[in-house]
Amino acid sequence: MSLTSPGTPPPPQPPALRVAVLGAGTVGTEVLRLIAQQRGDLAHRIGADLEVVGIAVRDLTRDRGEHAGAELLTEDASELVRTADLVIEVMGGIEPARSLLLDAMAHGASVVTANKALLAQDGASLYEAADIHGVDLYFEAAVAGAIPLVRPVRESLAGDRIQRVLGIVNGTTNYVLDAMTRTGASFDAALASAQELGFAEADPTADVQGHDAAAKASILASLAFHSRVRLSDVHCEGITEVSPLDIAAAARMGRTIKLLSIVERVQDDLGERISARVYPALLPDEHPLASVSEAYNAVFIEADAAGSLMFYGQGAGGAPTASAILGDVVSAARQRVRGGVGPRESRYAELEQVPLDDLRNAFYVSLTVQDRPGVLAEIAGTLSGNGISISTIHQELLEKPEGEGEQALAHIGISTHRALESAMTASLDLFSSTSTVLSIDSVLRIEGV
Amino acid sequence: MSLTSPGTPPPPQPPALRVAVLGAGTVGTEVLRLIAQQRGDLAHRIGADLEVVGIAVRDLTRDRGEHAGAELLTEDASELVRTADLVIEVMGGIEPARSLLLDAMAHGASVVTANKALLAQDGASLYEAADIHGVDLYFEAAVAGAIPLVRPVRESLAGDRIQRVLGIVNGTTNYVLDAMTRTGASFDAALASAQELGFAEADPTADVQGHDAAAKASILASLAFHSRVRLSDVHCEGITEVSPLDIAAAARMGRTIKLLSIVERVQDDLGERISARVYPALLPDEHPLASVSEAYNAVFIEADAAGSLMFYGQGAGGAPTASAILGDVVSAARQRVRGGVGPRESRYAELEQVPLDDLRNAFYVSLTVQDRPGVLAEIAGTLSGNGISISTIHQELLEKPEGEGEQALAHIGISTHRALESAMTASLDLFSSTSTVLSIDSVLRIEGV
Ligand SMILES: NC(=O)c1ccc[n+]([C@@H]2O[C@H](COP(=O)([O-])OP(=O)(O)OC[C@H]3O[C@@H](n4cnc5c(N)ncnc54)[C@H](OP(=O)(O)O)[C@@H]3O)[C@@H](O)[C@H]2O)c1
Ligand SMILES: NC(=O)c1ccc[n+]([C@@H]2O[C@H](COP(=O)([O-])OP(=O)(O)OC[C@H]3O[C@@H](n4cnc5c(N)ncnc54)[C@H](OP(=O)(O)O)[C@@H]3O)[C@@H](O)[C@H]2O)c1
Repeated sequence: MSLTSPGTPPPPQPPALRVAVLGAGTVGTEVLRLIAQQRGDLAHRIGADLEVVGIAVRDLTRDRGEHAGAELLTEDASELVRTADLVIEVMGGIEPARSLLLDAMAHGASVVTANKALLAQDGASLYEAADIHGVDLYFEAAVAGAIPLVRPVRESLAGDRIQRVLGIVNGTTNYVLDAMTRTGASFDAALASAQELGFAEADPTADVQGHDAAAKASILASLAFHSRVRLSDVHCEGITEVSPLDIAAAARMGRTIKLLSIVERVQDDLGERISARVYPALLPDEHPLASVSEAYNAVFIEADAAGSLMFYGQGAGGAPTASAILGDVVSAARQRVRGGVGPRESRYAELEQVPLDDLRNAFYVSLTVQDRPGVLAEIAGTLSGNGISISTIHQELLEKPEGEGEQALAHIGISTHRALESAMTASLDLFSSTSTVLSIDSVLRIEGV
Repeated sequence: MSLTSPGTPPPPQPPALRVAVLGAGTVGTEVLRLIAQQRGDLAHRIGADLEVVGIAVRDLTRDRGEHAGAELLTEDASELVRTADLVIEVMGGIEPARSLLLDAMAHGASVVTANKALLAQDGASLYEAADIHGVDLYFEAAVAGAIPLVRPVRESLAGDRIQRVLGIVNGTTNYVLDAMTRTGASFDAALASAQELGFAEADPTADVQGHDAAAKASILASLAFHSRVRLSDVHCEGITEVSPLDIAAAARMGRTIKLLSIVERVQDDLGERISARVYPALLPDEHPLASVSEAYNAVFIEADAAGSLMFYGQGAGGAPTASAILGDVVSAARQRVRGGVGPRESRYAELEQVPLDDLRNAFYVSLTVQDRPGVLAEIAGTLSGNGISISTIHQELLEKPEGEGEQALAHIGISTHRALESAMTASLDLFSSTSTVLSIDSVLRIEGV
């Protein structure tokens, strides 16, 4: 046994990093749980202890579980962020999150955030602040939850040339479309059951309108193409118009409807430009993304040298999102301890956006038309007059309506080869103005072919 | 127009990083091509120009294409590595690669390598050298080629707890098993056609014996569990014994045979330990890894918070491997330019290995037995006597051999529930010593259930 003389100083404490957590909701409570449960491991991996010094919430009275002790809760987020080495932002929304993060960085804190809405709308000012103040800004959790995607795109593929990213990055809409495909349910019914089961929020607007997927597309496009792509640059269509008829037609064609976030390089006469867009599209059943079920996310990347890569996992949920956040926390914290600086915004390429009209896509169009001789020829003529060639046509007679004088109707579903979006728009305008076409029931792009 | 007075100094040149490339074979020539073709982009991403100062080869006379000019080729790798900021090692083998990399680091160069054999056998000395000399050591290309895996495992999941990694990380064996599954061919025939098509090397030993997959398992296990796992720690069985009968039996059971690299945490009475092993195993057809075809690689990761993740892509080939290397080059080069240091070896956990005998696995065993009453009961009795319970049995009479006195034979295929490996070994020993069992035709584990 060895004796320590009373005068011996205690062994030096490893430095502790002061962590502020903004928000203790679905994600925040899981972040706090992981920090507590993995404390020892994290200290080893970082080289310093993580000490949560405060948790900002709105409602101080609500119980937040064992890892968010009442003594740590505060309503004064502005004060909290000024005293931290590291700020984890999981409160969401634009303000006050934006001001708090800017203030945190101005006071020397590095930031980890899951806030895709904020990044997509105003990432530039955050990047700039990180740059000016020499701190880090990480956001792996903002795209596709637990799936490592930001790091692979901006680090692993940094020596390659990404041509295209096709992603299922919104779990709610994938759950709804998958349910419609499995059960034949309507959009409304599938959404209601998704809400019941916790796969859709009470206000599902941002998901079903595609805004959430668009925010992620803007973040991915910025990273993949070293250009600044704002949320407002992303063409966005949601899934609210997708009908059971569309789902059935897709199945008949060996295709599956998925809400896709697409970011790609486009090379044409005007040189190299980029496109970022979100819409429900038909994918061949054999495409790896077609079989992504329920609320899972998956992202397919095509790069010149790497070829095709796919990443798959849980895109949301408290624990998976917290996993991604903690990975960023370790990176940012290690940088604090060992020196160095994380990735910065890179927009040296500043590629221009292609307007949607200039894109070439394959389409599926479904129309309700008069059932009389010459109709198919008229429709085919309109399309070919606009330079669109048809790949397949499917026609189905509708039940003859009761009553004299009522006209016989038919549904037709047309798949086209690739054509300019503007040519399709022009054709649809003509369809709207002819009495032959009673309604344009849907227009969907065909991707992954 | 503005005039520059003759006395004005030229604008400051951005610093250039001196890059040495060791090897200009399949991977090396692609690395050199990417560095040349992406020069501008890389300079932007790194903040400095990459200047290839030399390329080490054995044969100076061979033409290496336009990106490996004769003036850069050298036989003197030892001299070359001492003058570089960054050394890219794509020559392979243990020596002289090992000494060259140690020397490079001692002279202050950071290292990027694709050399899984070297890392698996002697990673510790490389890590140590990087640490001592304050340089970086990156090796994304050493596991699963183009698929970002090292970075996700050691950075993205750094705040999570990885329980298990199941990987198809050898393209050659996956190609061979896939061909056997599709065509019913024998191992030898499938291997020969893989060699013809360039999916297997002239000497396929390291692939078909599982050594390459085992090297990758040791690298993955070390990263995932923060413990030092050597190649010699990995239990390794190859695919040479897999027969068309096994493939057919698997299909009948709705399963697919894949060569798996498995690294996992094991929790039992003895506490927490880890296992790293490679063998051909039966996967349920629905498992995401079961449908990975041809020479593709895919890795399935289970982590406490993230849940299940899957990564998929090309595990080999010049360009895909070069993509992974260039990602590492950008990281290492950025660190040079901006300061900071990359990830280090982390083996604080130092978890012990579970001996194979202590693992619990489900098995598929196929036997040739005498066809007479009581045989099934005897076999079932042997298994249950060793604590192994049967899940399904399939029996098939073999054609009765010609001639008097020849006995009737049957094949039986048995799937078991999870049981100790040692119990299975004991049962197999008993089968070998009884006259009832004429031969033990195969023993395969069942995974992913
Ligand atoms: N949920 C997911 O699966 C997921 C996945 C990826 C990314 N994200 C992102 O992660 C962020 C958080 O999501 P969440 O689902 O955890 O949200 P949430 O459950 O609504 O939690 C938000 C938390 O922030 C607090 N908060 C909100 N506004 C505040 C303010 N002005 N001052 C102080 N505290 C405030 C709330 O306090 P009170 O509890 O007192 O109201 C609550 O604790 C969002 O940016 C979201 O987009 C979420
Ligand atoms: N090929 C793949 O798909 C792949 C995928 C992942 C990782 N890797 C790893 O990448 C490395 C390289 O693979 P590879 O397929 O490119 O091999 P390779 O085609 O055989 O090329 C090896 C190169 O290294 C040179 N070299 C070998 N020994 C040398 C020595 N002692 N001194 C100087 N130069 C020497 C050779 O020179 P000569 O040309 O003069 O003979 C040749 O240029 C290996 O570690 C491999 O495991 C390969």
